[in-house]
Amino acid sequence: MRHFDLCVIGSGPGGQKAAIQAAKLGRSVCVIERMESVGGVAIHTGTIPSKAFRQAIMEATHGKDHLEIRGDTRAGRISIEDLLASCQKIIVAEMEIVRGQLQRNGVSTVTGHARFVGAHRVEVTSTRGAEEIAADKFVIAVGTAPARPGEIPFDDKLVLTSDDLVKLSRLPRSMIVVGGGVIGTEFASMFARLGVRVSLVEKQERLLPFLDRQIGEALQYNLRDLGMTLRLGEQLVSVSKEEGAEGDDEADEAVKVSLASGKILRADTLLYCLGRQGATAEMNLGEIGLAPDGRGRIGVDEDYRTANPDVYAVGDVIGFPALASTSMDQGRVAASKIMGVPVTSTPQLFPYGIYSIPEISMVGLTEEDLTDGGVPYEIGVARYKEIARGQIIGDDVGMLKLLFHQGTREILGVHIIGTGATELIHIGQAAIALGGTMDYFVDTAFNYPTLAECYKVAALNGLNRLCA
Amino acid sequence: MRHFDLCVIGSGPGGQKAAIQAAKLGRSVCVIERMESVGGVAIHTGTIPSKAFRQAIMEATHGKDHLEIRGDTRAGRISIEDLLASCQKIIVAEMEIVRGQLQRNGVSTVTGHARFVGAHRVEVTSTRGAEEIAADKFVIAVGTAPARPGEIPFDDKLVLTSDDLVKLSRLPRSMIVVGGGVIGTEFASMFARLGVRVSLVEKQERLLPFLDRQIGEALQYNLRDLGMTLRLGEQLVSVSKEEGAEGDDEADEAVKVSLASGKILRADTLLYCLGRQGATAEMNLGEIGLAPDGRGRIGVDEDYRTANPDVYAVGDVIGFPALASTSMDQGRVAASKIMGVPVTSTPQLFPYGIYSIPEISMVGLTEEDLTDGGVPYEIGVARYKEIARGQIIGDDVGMLKLLFHQGTREILGVHIIGTGATELIHIGQAAIALGGTMDYFVDTAFNYPTLAECYKVAALNGLNRLCA
Repeated sequence: MRHFDLCVIGSGPGGQKAAIQAAKLGRSVCVIERMESVGGVAIHTGTIPSKAFRQAIMEATHGKDHLEIRGDTRAGRISIEDLLASCQKIIVAEMEIVRGQLQRNGVSTVTGHARFVGAHRVEVTSTRGAEEIAADKFVIAVGTAPARPGEIPFDDKLVLTSDDLVKLSRLPRSMIVVGGGVIGTEFASMFARLGVRVSLVEKQERLLPFLDRQIGEALQYNLRDLGMTLRLGEQLVSVSKEEGAEGDDEADEAVKVSLASGKILRADTLLYCLGRQGATAEMNLGEIGLAPDGRGRIGVDEDYRTANPDVYAVGDVIGFPALASTSMDQGRVAASKIMGVPVTSTPQLFPYGIYSIPEISMVGLTEEDLTDGGVPYEIGVARYKEIARGQIIGDDVGMLKLLFHQGTREILGVHIIGTGATELIHIGQAAIALGGTMDYFVDTAFNYPTLAECYKVAALNGLNRLCA
Repeated sequence: MRHFDLCVIGSGPGGQKAAIQAAKLGRSVCVIERMESVGGVAIHTGTIPSKAFRQAIMEATHGKDHLEIRGDTRAGRISIEDLLASCQKIIVAEMEIVRGQLQRNGVSTVTGHARFVGAHRVEVTSTRGAEEIAADKFVIAVGTAPARPGEIPFDDKLVLTSDDLVKLSRLPRSMIVVGGGVIGTEFASMFARLGVRVSLVEKQERLLPFLDRQIGEALQYNLRDLGMTLRLGEQLVSVSKEEGAEGDDEADEAVKVSLASGKILRADTLLYCLGRQGATAEMNLGEIGLAPDGRGRIGVDEDYRTANPDVYAVGDVIGFPALASTSMDQGRVAASKIMGVPVTSTPQLFPYGIYSIPEISMVGLTEEDLTDGGVPYEIGVARYKEIARGQIIGDDVGMLKLLFHQGTREILGVHIIGTGATELIHIGQAAIALGGTMDYFVDTAFNYPTLAECYKVAALNGLNRLCA
């Protein structure tokens, strides 16, 4: 039986970074991956393919009125095959990068499904047989899988989860997206951009309620402007399929959704994005004294340690925010904690990046956080259309908002919606992390024309508000 | 005669910011602008149109092999009219923004040519007549104009300066660009991207010698890869025009260039980008005791004050780096100094942004600076193709390089070539300005996938080099 200092279960972003960090510290490490290739859902069905899909859409629809490019493969415009093909190339390249990183750092990879069979032992089974592996410590980074409730008639054709999108054979004319979390919102906006008639059903009254309210409202405004119908505060009752008048012709099939409010929605596709489940069901976690919650998720303390002191968990399987970026940091921190080496991490400065159309990113606190906390703050806003770069790229919805302390001018939060939001946020993140105030942005020369200039414009706007 | 606290001559980026800063401090301010509309060459023929032109080219050529899209208006591919039309819209929008900013801040604008007629008096003449204006202080921000030496046969058709590019009636098949400074390099790369066969003639042995050498070499490599011929270390001897065999048919006309090395170059267009001149010749600067240098430029001290204590100068007219971004900061600082209010500016952290293809930006010191200064540094490099976002956007030339102190890990310089360089540089600029070390990038969570992630990858790469 092979023995390792650390056994990481799952090779997504969290697992990778945990394994590499431990290996760099000189420990023997293995990564167990259920699939034939490394990378986890981030590479295979989640983060990377969805961002590649988005990029392909942005390029295909750039500068054109999106309503005119309604998918029509016969006219040689945008085909789902082209969009998906461009993703596939990127998936392969990323897989190679991850495989190379693990290999260069001397991490052993083991293919198969891991199941605890003792306090420090897992059995790994694959089509090629079974192997037992022992380790002193474990990091569980198994991620999540889409929920597939029995009452939803999934068929890999009309009724899909986001993991099944690669199976789409044609661009639908209409789509009902169930669930307005990050995944549902991102995909809904992409299909709307392609000219698909999208209805988004969400039981909460707003999308992505962790966003600053003004940004969340701007998002909803822009999604509606893309032609999307938002059904907020609505509860799903049932989903059924309807045959078209002409029998087997799939073009005439439809999906029917009933909502608790009595509304009936019909579309030719349904994308189910509700309640991803921690992929822990088959891991026999009871063996090591762990009890996942109803959604398969594992509880951890601030060091990402579970109730079992030799077992840590990171990534989507521990819940919010379930972003690749945060999972990576969790992996790095968990490995350092396990190995007893000092590590600096500032979860309060984790950026959130939402790859919807328009793109959103934030770091630090929201207006609601600050109001609840009784912090006297002021805001400073810059709109892309007011600055040269915004004009040049034609982004007239973009906006950057700074939140700062009225007394100390300390920067408390940065919220961006628009082109490049996920990149630009890191300027604000650095300023907050390193103790910059609004004066830093006023006193700094920015390249011209850039979107980064918004920081200066927003800072001036904010300081002007203090004078008024 | 109207009297102002401050009279700013020129309404480009430097003049605008000087005027607005003084107006915000409660002073009466006028801006004198020679042209009918505000904005200076930055808006009308320089920064903004060239960046809009670049954006149009990037969109038109995205994802295609640039060699296949050789401009051919008959085939309905890329026409110079379309490219220029998209610029025109942006110019108008920017002009409106500048006009609005000046107006909102109560700055008076006066149209006409300004000429000193006394220690504190200028005469402003336009087609509508003349007016004398008095002011306590002056900021000269008149910018530069292309040199048009008598021996070059400029004709607004085949032999042009960058200011004349709007007059191009068709996309040339071949072009000789004379001068490898920022403007020459930017335009040469844009036309090469369009499939124009470009030869760039520069008398120095390298383009943009202020760049870090590795970045400069990467630029030259990539320009050659775009199909450009670089003629470095070459001296221009003469330029002449040749009639084609078919007489008046302009398609057969050509430009012939002789170099001191004996080489003869021929192309159907020549773009002359050498030696812009400070636009001071007609200002009667002797009246106020100023003597511009041979290229019309005005000398200033570190507060941007000229030899005349009541007269300041900012922007391109004072020479290097002659970028809109630095001009703006100079304007802001000069106005504050004039009004005696404290101002913070850190010219050593001015970013340089070069909108060539690929894009380049830098902040802080280069390897050569550090070697000359005897500073023990190490480098950390990340290549776009190693990170997910680089794969997704298909940028396989991009690279980010950090220079840091081997002992303190303090960040000393950031150098980027590739997509988004001018935006991304501001993350590194904030880290340097606010005292961050390499550990800041290692300990920070970055959105995934972003190009900003390069900072983390480069930091890890750099720290690894320290261990080896």
